[in-house]
Amino acid sequence: MAREAHNTPVTRWLAERASNIQRGDLPSDAVTVARQCILDWYAVTIPGASEPAVTLLADELLEDGAAPLASLVGLEGRTSPLNAALINGTASHALDFDDVNLAILGHPTVALLPGLLALAEQTGATQDDILTAFTAGYEVVCRVGLLTSPSHYNHGFHATSTVGSIGAAAACARLLGLDAEQTATALGIAATKASGLKSMFGTMCKPLHAGMAAQNGLMAARLAARGYTSRADALECAQGFAATQSVDFNADAAMEGQPLDFHLKNNLFKYHASCYLTHGAIEAALAIREKNGLETASIRTITISVPPITDRVCNLARPTTGLEAKFSLRLTVAMALSGRNTSGIETYTDELTQEPELLRLRDLATIDFVEGYPQAKADVEVTLDDGRSFKASHDAGLPDADLARQGRKLEQKFDAMIEPLLGARTSQLRVALAGFGGGDSLAEISEMARGAQ
Amino acid sequence: MAREAHNTPVTRWLAERASNIQRGDLPSDAVTVARQCILDWYAVTIPGASEPAVTLLADELLEDGAAPLASLVGLEGRTSPLNAALINGTASHALDFDDVNLAILGHPTVALLPGLLALAEQTGATQDDILTAFTAGYEVVCRVGLLTSPSHYNHGFHATSTVGSIGAAAACARLLGLDAEQTATALGIAATKASGLKSMFGTMCKPLHAGMAAQNGLMAARLAARGYTSRADALECAQGFAATQSVDFNADAAMEGQPLDFHLKNNLFKYHASCYLTHGAIEAALAIREKNGLETASIRTITISVPPITDRVCNLARPTTGLEAKFSLRLTVAMALSGRNTSGIETYTDELTQEPELLRLRDLATIDFVEGYPQAKADVEVTLDDGRSFKASHDAGLPDADLARQGRKLEQKFDAMIEPLLGARTSQLRVALAGFGGGDSLAEISEMARGAQ
Repeated sequence: MAREAHNTPVTRWLAERASNIQRGDLPSDAVTVARQCILDWYAVTIPGASEPAVTLLADELLEDGAAPLASLVGLEGRTSPLNAALINGTASHALDFDDVNLAILGHPTVALLPGLLALAEQTGATQDDILTAFTAGYEVVCRVGLLTSPSHYNHGFHATSTVGSIGAAAACARLLGLDAEQTATALGIAATKASGLKSMFGTMCKPLHAGMAAQNGLMAARLAARGYTSRADALECAQGFAATQSVDFNADAAMEGQPLDFHLKNNLFKYHASCYLTHGAIEAALAIREKNGLETASIRTITISVPPITDRVCNLARPTTGLEAKFSLRLTVAMALSGRNTSGIETYTDELTQEPELLRLRDLATIDFVEGYPQAKADVEVTLDDGRSFKASHDAGLPDADLARQGRKLEQKFDAMIEPLLGARTSQLRVALAGFGGGDSLAEISEMARGAQ
Repeated sequence: MAREAHNTPVTRWLAERASNIQRGDLPSDAVTVARQCILDWYAVTIPGASEPAVTLLADELLEDGAAPLASLVGLEGRTSPLNAALINGTASHALDFDDVNLAILGHPTVALLPGLLALAEQTGATQDDILTAFTAGYEVVCRVGLLTSPSHYNHGFHATSTVGSIGAAAACARLLGLDAEQTATALGIAATKASGLKSMFGTMCKPLHAGMAAQNGLMAARLAARGYTSRADALECAQGFAATQSVDFNADAAMEGQPLDFHLKNNLFKYHASCYLTHGAIEAALAIREKNGLETASIRTITISVPPITDRVCNLARPTTGLEAKFSLRLTVAMALSGRNTSGIETYTDELTQEPELLRLRDLATIDFVEGYPQAKADVEVTLDDGRSFKASHDAGLPDADLARQGRKLEQKFDAMIEPLLGARTSQLRVALAGFGGGDSLAEISEMARGAQ
């Protein structure tokens, strides 16, 4: 593990880029994807807010009181921006159904958006300001992810939390209108507050990490705005973020690409309520099932080919809880082959993990780790008793090229997630989010996104 | 950097030990040292609260409001326990004049006490409860420090912040009366929140780290008490705290020693307002000066022999600010040889770093790094124009064996620090702190330790 300084001034480069992004410079596709990220964030956060990882946290923080400056999404009440960032951030990752970017091997929007929303409510920033700041933060979080990939994540750091803190600082710094120097300082404060262990996957601390990132970023930007000092080169300096938590320092990759939505356009949405690295295999399994109409009783072998990174992320061999089921490649493939609704958050129960037919398929499956495979690609091959075999492949690392189709799928997901909770308010909120931007503040959306009375 | 699990269940062992400590079991020497830690904490925190690293933070947090459940030391007003832990923790490390334990290569009391005080005010815990919980946390912080030494600190992690978070969780868990299982969960939550980069030394983030540790520990214990989940083996598990941030896993050292004050008795107090690893050299230089009454003009060479660890901690060659001066071995030795008051926080000014006679002595000094030297030991050798040479040695890693003498020195330090700020209240507060314990709550002390009206 290197302790030494690296030579490229990446922190300053990122700070300049983030602080210079203007709403008028954003390509329309970028605005579309940013809106989709925001729509999808509400789709997963409103139901996520009822999870114990969130309600326990909210009970704890609300007990201490705070000025009612920021809304809680999916819950009652208002609190301080820092509390709201932590609670809403945790809520947005509680179902693990939020968006993904492979540049950070993690979840960008849950780290970036909660602090921005809280800050915007406090300052009265417009929806357009939020879109701009979100895009700025999105670029930074992905670029810091690439800078320290793959060792940062592989060593056990939860990049959504760590790298997410730094991206969230960039986003909030942009919303506050900080200059490049102040933004670099904010990145430094966030870097020294960044933490999160991958060993916490499967516990309430995993969603808490998203809240930590959002809160760390918000606090870092606000302290920098007040004149708090830190390093302006925290990513590359000796004993800095990269030096302590990565053997990689891919400055070229971090600084590659000119368009302002270079990374935003690679955002990946989740349509299955399980770990993203199960999605390729689920899609491949679904393709086999749909095309061939097979009976699961006739399946003799299942082979899943995935890259080795999957092993440490979602290869639980014998899940016993609904949460663990989401991190079991074999069980989720068994679910898909059996026609279970892998998109439904209600599907992943403790009981599911003990169903005999799923257990049989799960234990039939073998995993073949293929060096050099793209991160989210999977092949599934199924052979039947009669000797026939079917094979399908899906690379879940490639975004949908058709943004309109992607938008429709996300609106369906939104309705499926929100209707049971908000009823008639659902379509109003969906329409408001689909048109995010213009001159409006967040107030109306925040009111609609509160918990049901 | 290892990612794999270690075999020894250190987390559980520490959690059991911490949760079982009882006030009646504490040796009287331990209680004396704990009281001295608390007295000294107030001595550095009340003046520290006026530093910009604290006032900027307090302005930021108080603006958002909170229930007035906990006091701010050295400032006006009350706030939530989590805010108070962060602000008071930052205040206590702002002058870098607080106590040290070499088992963590850092500062135990600034991490442990602020959360305990805030929690005690909220719950009405007694001073004796605080003494017990402090001792429990003190043992844990030192043992986690030894577990991951020396690589954790050497790689660039600020152990006061990281290891401090985990110790603070143990302390707060004990004050809340959590059982061993809940305490282990609290250690896990703290482990995933623990962060802090040594590259931030010399910026406001260094004192912020102490506040982060205090706040992380308090939040971890409170969440665990509410039923929040994390790993119960976060120190040793794969992708856990040690696996991600240390190549060491010294389980035997971490679990060594039976007395409950095994580590507390090695607490080291600072009598010079500079980095602790300059103290040995300062004391040696003072001994040479006092014994030989030398004129600095006649000094021809100065050789300082210290262990290599010093190089990354306090070997700034050309400090230009008062803060940097505290981390310059050569300048602090020059100060001691010149009879400057190294104990006075007001001594370390930006101007001091440019005084010609000090610069001359600073640049005369050479540093000899001696492998295998005790961490805080230093030899200083001075030769004069007339050929005479003098040598002295001091190991600042050895605690004062005479606790009564140590107490008198700390009371002198307390008066020197507090008198200019609190005037007549100083002796009242000193007497109350010197008798810390018995049946009283914190209320009276908290009232006396507020900022001057």
